[in-house]
Amino acid sequence: MNILFLLTPKSDCAYVREEDTIRQALERMSAAGFAAVPILAKDGTYRGTLTEGDLLWAIKKLYLMDMKEAESHGIMEIQRRKDNQAVSVTTPVEDLLTTAVDQNFVPVVDDRGTFIGIVTRKAIMQYCMDTYIFAKRAQPVHAG
Amino acid sequence: MNILFLLTPKSDCAYVREEDTIRQALERMSAAGFAAVPILAKDGTYRGTLTEGDLLWAIKKLYLMDMKEAESHGIMEIQRRKDNQAVSVTTPVEDLLTTAVDQNFVPVVDDRGTFIGIVTRKAIMQYCMDTYIFAKRAQPVHAG
Repeated sequence: MNILFLLTPKSDCAYVREEDTIRQALERMSAAGFAAVPILAKDGTYRGTLTEGDLLWAIKKLYLMDMKEAESHGIMEIQRRKDNQAVSVTTPVEDLLTTAVDQNFVPVVDDRGTFIGIVTRKAIMQYCMDTYIFAKRAQPVHAG
Repeated sequence: MNILFLLTPKSDCAYVREEDTIRQALERMSAAGFAAVPILAKDGTYRGTLTEGDLLWAIKKLYLMDMKEAESHGIMEIQRRKDNQAVSVTTPVEDLLTTAVDQNFVPVVDDRGTFIGIVTRKAIMQYCMDTYIFAKRAQPVHAG
C-alpha cells in the first residue's frame, strides 16, 4: 500500500500558477469550487497553497473597502456554498465519521436542536490514528 | 465512547450569529482565523455554515469590483495564512496521515520536487474507515 493508491493526480486537480494575477486566481477558484488549491511554478514544482481566505483578506486590503456597504447587509443574505450537516450528540461515532468525510467540521446539537459544539476533522483523524493505527502497532505479536 | 469525547464545546468555538452584518462576520472570521464557522440563531440553534469563500464571493458581487486592480497584482504578492506541507510519493501512508491531521489536503511531489497530485482528507478518512472500522465490523467473531 502506497500513497499512489490515495492520490488525486495532477490532471484531476485544480491549481493556480505562481505567475497568475489575483483576477486569474479568482476566476480559477470560482470555477473549481475549492476552498484551497496548490500553487505551482512554471517548471511544475509545488510552491504553496492559496485559499479563498487569502484572496478575501488580500482584496479587503487592496480595495481599502468602504465598510458602509458591508454594514448594511446581513450574512443571511449571502449565498452559501454548502451548510455542514449537523449530527445529534447521541449519534454513534462511526456514523459521525461518515458525515465528516464530506465536511471540514461536524456541528453537534442536543435533542432540542441547540448547538453544543463541533467535532473537527482534525479530532477525528487523531482519533482514527490513535485507535486503529498506532494501537495496531502497539499490539503484541501473537505467534501463529 | 461517544461524541462528547471528540467535541470542541461551544465555549471554545468561533461562530457567527444569524443577525450579524457582513462587516461583523468579516471581523469575527478575521479574528478567529478559521476558514469556516457555524452560524447560530439567537436561541442557540444551528443555522448553517459560513465560509471565507462565501464572504469572498459575496463581496466580489456586492462591490461590483473593478477588476483592473486585481489584474495588476500577482498572487505571490498576497500574504498566505499557511502553505500546506508537501510529502514525497515514497512517504509511508502512516506518516501521510500525521501530515494530513493539520491540513485539508496534502500535496505530493516526486523525487525532483515536481507536483504530481494531492491526497485529500476525504480520501484519507475514507481509507481509514474502510481499512480499520468497516473491516473490523466485517471480521468474523471468534469464540473465546
